[in-house]
Amino acid sequence: MEPEEASAPEDAGSRLMLRVERPVYDEEFLRTQLLHRKQNSTSFRQKLADKFKCSSQKAKAVALSFLPILTWLPSYPVKQYLLSDVISGLSTGVVQLPQGLAYALLAAVPPVYGLYSSFYPVLLYIFFGTSRHVSIGTFAVVSLMIGGAVVREVPDNMFIGPANVSNSSSVDKDLNLSPIDARRVQVAVVLTTMVGIIQFVLGLLRFGFVAIYLTEPLVRGFTTAAAVHVVISQLKYLLGVKTARFSGPLSAVYSVHAVLSKITETNIPSLLLGLTCTVFLYGIKVLNEHFKKKLPVPIPGEIIVVILSTGVSYGIPLKSHNVSIVGQIPSGLRAPAVPDFSLALNLIPDAIAVAIVGFSMTISLSKTFALKHGYSVDGNQELIALGLCNFLSSFFHTFAITCSMSRSLVQESTGGKTQIAGLLSSLVVLLVVLAIGFVFEPLPQTALAAIITVNLVGMFKQFRDIPPLWRTSKIELAIWLVSFAASVLLGLDYGLLAAIAFAIITVIYRTQSPKSTILGHVTNTGLYYDVNTYEEASEYEGIKIFHSNSSIYFANSDRYASKLKEKTGVNPEELQAARKAKRKRKKKENEEQNSSIKICAKDETEDATQEVVPQSQDMQEVRNGDSEDKPGEPTSEEAVFLEPLSSVHSIILDWTAVNFIDSVGAKAIKQVIKEYASVDVRVVIAGCNRTVLDQLYTLQFFSEELSTNVVFPSVHDAALHCQCSSSRLPAASSEA
Amino acid sequence: MEPEEASAPEDAGSRLMLRVERPVYDEEFLRTQLLHRKQNSTSFRQKLADKFKCSSQKAKAVALSFLPILTWLPSYPVKQYLLSDVISGLSTGVVQLPQGLAYALLAAVPPVYGLYSSFYPVLLYIFFGTSRHVSIGTFAVVSLMIGGAVVREVPDNMFIGPANVSNSSSVDKDLNLSPIDARRVQVAVVLTTMVGIIQFVLGLLRFGFVAIYLTEPLVRGFTTAAAVHVVISQLKYLLGVKTARFSGPLSAVYSVHAVLSKITETNIPSLLLGLTCTVFLYGIKVLNEHFKKKLPVPIPGEIIVVILSTGVSYGIPLKSHNVSIVGQIPSGLRAPAVPDFSLALNLIPDAIAVAIVGFSMTISLSKTFALKHGYSVDGNQELIALGLCNFLSSFFHTFAITCSMSRSLVQESTGGKTQIAGLLSSLVVLLVVLAIGFVFEPLPQTALAAIITVNLVGMFKQFRDIPPLWRTSKIELAIWLVSFAASVLLGLDYGLLAAIAFAIITVIYRTQSPKSTILGHVTNTGLYYDVNTYEEASEYEGIKIFHSNSSIYFANSDRYASKLKEKTGVNPEELQAARKAKRKRKKKENEEQNSSIKICAKDETEDATQEVVPQSQDMQEVRNGDSEDKPGEPTSEEAVFLEPLSSVHSIILDWTAVNFIDSVGAKAIKQVIKEYASVDVRVVIAGCNRTVLDQLYTLQFFSEELSTNVVFPSVHDAALHCQCSSSRLPAASSEA
Repeated sequence: MEPEEASAPEDAGSRLMLRVERPVYDEEFLRTQLLHRKQNSTSFRQKLADKFKCSSQKAKAVALSFLPILTWLPSYPVKQYLLSDVISGLSTGVVQLPQGLAYALLAAVPPVYGLYSSFYPVLLYIFFGTSRHVSIGTFAVVSLMIGGAVVREVPDNMFIGPANVSNSSSVDKDLNLSPIDARRVQVAVVLTTMVGIIQFVLGLLRFGFVAIYLTEPLVRGFTTAAAVHVVISQLKYLLGVKTARFSGPLSAVYSVHAVLSKITETNIPSLLLGLTCTVFLYGIKVLNEHFKKKLPVPIPGEIIVVILSTGVSYGIPLKSHNVSIVGQIPSGLRAPAVPDFSLALNLIPDAIAVAIVGFSMTISLSKTFALKHGYSVDGNQELIALGLCNFLSSFFHTFAITCSMSRSLVQESTGGKTQIAGLLSSLVVLLVVLAIGFVFEPLPQTALAAIITVNLVGMFKQFRDIPPLWRTSKIELAIWLVSFAASVLLGLDYGLLAAIAFAIITVIYRTQSPKSTILGHVTNTGLYYDVNTYEEASEYEGIKIFHSNSSIYFANSDRYASKLKEKTGVNPEELQAARKAKRKRKKKENEEQNSSIKICAKDETEDATQEVVPQSQDMQEVRNGDSEDKPGEPTSEEAVFLEPLSSVHSIILDWTAVNFIDSVGAKAIKQVIKEYASVDVRVVIAGCNRTVLDQLYTLQFFSEELSTNVVFPSVHDAALHCQCSSSRLPAASSEA
Repeated sequence: MEPEEASAPEDAGSRLMLRVERPVYDEEFLRTQLLHRKQNSTSFRQKLADKFKCSSQKAKAVALSFLPILTWLPSYPVKQYLLSDVISGLSTGVVQLPQGLAYALLAAVPPVYGLYSSFYPVLLYIFFGTSRHVSIGTFAVVSLMIGGAVVREVPDNMFIGPANVSNSSSVDKDLNLSPIDARRVQVAVVLTTMVGIIQFVLGLLRFGFVAIYLTEPLVRGFTTAAAVHVVISQLKYLLGVKTARFSGPLSAVYSVHAVLSKITETNIPSLLLGLTCTVFLYGIKVLNEHFKKKLPVPIPGEIIVVILSTGVSYGIPLKSHNVSIVGQIPSGLRAPAVPDFSLALNLIPDAIAVAIVGFSMTISLSKTFALKHGYSVDGNQELIALGLCNFLSSFFHTFAITCSMSRSLVQESTGGKTQIAGLLSSLVVLLVVLAIGFVFEPLPQTALAAIITVNLVGMFKQFRDIPPLWRTSKIELAIWLVSFAASVLLGLDYGLLAAIAFAIITVIYRTQSPKSTILGHVTNTGLYYDVNTYEEASEYEGIKIFHSNSSIYFANSDRYASKLKEKTGVNPEELQAARKAKRKRKKKENEEQNSSIKICAKDETEDATQEVVPQSQDMQEVRNGDSEDKPGEPTSEEAVFLEPLSSVHSIILDWTAVNFIDSVGAKAIKQVIKEYASVDVRVVIAGCNRTVLDQLYTLQFFSEELSTNVVFPSVHDAALHCQCSSSRLPAASSEA
């Protein structure tokens, strides 16, 4: 291990030499002589001006970023891409269609609205979206959240008064909707408008970062909970029983209870058909997975189920066996209408939750694809795109959309290259809406329930996250579990909020309960490590180096100070008390010597010494200090002051890990330095980064009593300085 | 600045030498050869066992800490302390009495309950409290919070049904209370019981740290808002008008509006008396302040006002002039009773808020005194003490208490040494309750309102915090303002919650929006500073050192990666695209050369190159890299791969500021390293502390592809390593 010359590194890791030889610096020297701030740094105003400067180039860039289609469509390589885009688009459309019908069930609106939602937003996304591979449209979790809000606002047993009927008469006329369905559509549509507005505004404000709190364990716990909700909501369709739909906290429990209490009324044809579809779909899914590479296009199990079960329903009129069917699907699109904003107020929390969930799904999926195919997506533009899709489409009676994982995987795996595939898939849906929608009218709802359920199998697999999380990170496991439990029990909206709150609290917890250690020097390396963990780390005599892996601010400054006292074993209060006691004892002894009269002074000494009871195991140092003093017993009163109270003369605060400090923290540190100064222990700060130093200057931390020469650029500088000047300590201590 | 020998430091700051000469280390070497974990570290189980080990010594310590009176009373220095304690206790009692009467008004209960609250808890605190100087008892802010809850639960116009009357009949019998007052007392008492339970349990659970979120700006903003509420609530007494009392959000606005709308009904005698009292009290306050050192005991303005105005009220029967008076004050104490817990459910949020505010007042004040007089208070024991005071006293019909700042200052400044002073002051109150309470029955309420108002003058002075906060810390100013505004507008309970939430968010904001910089070496020092700020910091050629002052976790890992790409100016995606484009160009050129047929391939190249548009100003490096390549134009296809894509060959992540990392962060970093590896840029980690390294091991960050030799103990190690091995880069790059 003896260092060699650096010239020819044969084994670069261990032979290359690190050589530093320079004076020990402190902040005063650094600031006044070594470092010079650059003068050319632009002022805040300048920066602001630069940011808002207009130019044609900038305008063009803004236009391009707002309408990403302009960047890729003009150079669309028709020959290379078109065929695969068409194939992919058709395959996706064939999945989009049954999913649209099915997820409308979840959103508690008639199925045709699922088709609308599978058309308009997909078309709009082509213009505004930056991801080339995601398939926008209906999504189970979002649909379920909409359904929850819709059912809460328009419960099954709601009496629709004449005022409302007149309100929704235009809807009635077109579609012969029941008043309750008409009202539910209104709620879903206005919710979608609000979701769109929220997403659009967040995008404009560059708030794409809100999604960062949706950390992976949180999202996975949440979506697993959503899958539980979805399956519970589909139980009644699979069993063919009629129960009310619940919403709000504990709705999952109520729903299960309601279904179980009616289990005797199970409709056998429904159940059989549902189970058959489920098994069939699951089989297809497994096949697709297994022969992924051999199949040019995955088998479209969902459309097969839809067609077959519709056929069966035609053949055997299932409706007469009390099997719920999809019912009327009007042909053609509906004229646009302005959503009824009188319903908006109650829906604000739902809109926020849907907006966030919708965005987080899209961004996580589009980032995955972007990474795989080597392009980049813009989070804020995605927010704007989703917002516009939701907002504009809602005028055409759609409910909120995002991208669906299963569908996007189809679009990508069948060779989709750009959103031209999305265009094709939306055209497939349009065709059905315009021409042959009515064909699906006898489609049994139980088949749709089967489609929904099987699509969620993947989400249930997320339970497998738990064991690895247990091994790697208990905190993240806690986030997963809280997210899951809260979302199952409180409902998806409040569950999501609770989960985000919990995730934030874990961060607070981490910054607020720092791990603090005493560092020691590894000889001849300039490196300092925890003395309790590493054999090689040894302390300098009389110097304690305190490290705490956290910033110092209001929530942990008290703890920082108390940990410092505990870990270093030097407690100024106790030392002060000890000094007082000693002074009294001396005084008494002097008096005794002088007057030879013995006074019982039991009270005072007891009162004072009982505060010196050592409280921690680290106190040995202090005790040693005390016991050393006793044998000597200097006779003059001044000697009591000159004698060091503790064998520790310097404490170095290692601030390499301090990222910010606030006024409370600065005050606490100032107080600590003062307290220690009063018992002749010098406290210095080491390794403080320049940002924190700037904060200290702003907080007026430094003053005449506390100059910048207590700050050192590295722990090693501070340690050398303290070591060297300790020889002069008796003189220095009289200053305090 | 040339280094000299270290021996004789004349000017310790600049001459003392720092000398390090050792091989460059990486984590692999550190872990396997340099550092050895100590074997003797105790296991978790061992630690747990130690913690719960029983011994007589430990039992005694627990008993002493639970009943602090046992530590100080046996050694009470009667001769020295008793006289000053008696004087201080009598002075405090004389303030305690009128404050008790006045704050009962705030708590919306009859005045005699204020006297009860000034007796029982004060007595109990002597046994359990650790502070020697605070004066426990009624406090304006807490009383107001109780009043808010009481009025919400029992509004002025509440009809008390027969059931409730029978409930409170025992109360009626004793005191001839109106049913509404009886009910209000019940609510205040049960709230107090709950506050006591919450404080006691928090204390047992060692949750004293909850108070840490009550940072100073938050508490000062909050108490200023409380002062505003108190003054608003007293307006009607000062003016002598009768209005309803409001509670809940915006109650301050409603109260002001209600008083203003009745301003024409102002009772002139009330107003005159009130103003006289206010001016008199304020004058006394100023005098006391001014002649602090000359007066042995402050002039007890409050008791003078009470006695004089009672006298006036006797002389001129003010009641006949429609001046509200205190009314019946029954003599003697009341028998204890179990609080009516049927009311508890609605009061939970109030109880939590009162418990937290009460505790934070006591702890901040007792810490101030402890610091001044050199003893220490135990936060958790204070919680237990307050909890017991509130809980036990509530059985004797008191409302929640804490320490009052004005009264505690009287107790301390008149020479109080221990809680013997508290005992005396409670005895003064007891005397009044038992013997001469009825004397104060004609006391006009307007005089009490004057006492309350003048006591709050100090709190209004807190507005002066704003200018210094503006200069030192905008974030803390924001906390002050949010705390104030929320507490004024939402009411004290929700306001406090909102303020705490905001304070937490500021912490999140600080950790989540890190400041990132590129570091450069200050020649011959081993120190690295921001190249944009300091002239002396210069970059090594081909090496970028990236520093970000934050931990890396789910909420900022994305940002970390994108900032890294932006600041270093090396974007792997763009480089990849550039490489692809180049490869295509080469292929085309080859084809052209081979077949001499020109094919228009505009589409592809445009598609690929448009992604290389540099997005940031830091991109020069990359452009240079590109332009350097162009002139060379190697002919063979392999040369495209060997040629470095960027002039930067190594990126060093300075992790000295990273305090923790979670799985999302680790994944992000792994991804970043992989991305850069694919474009032949090596990423290494430097200055990572051992705790974070342990986390990386647990998160299985290191694998065969990513070994521990990318981790270096300091930035200087990493920089030297990268500098040295860059010469071998072409060979290394082919590995990627």
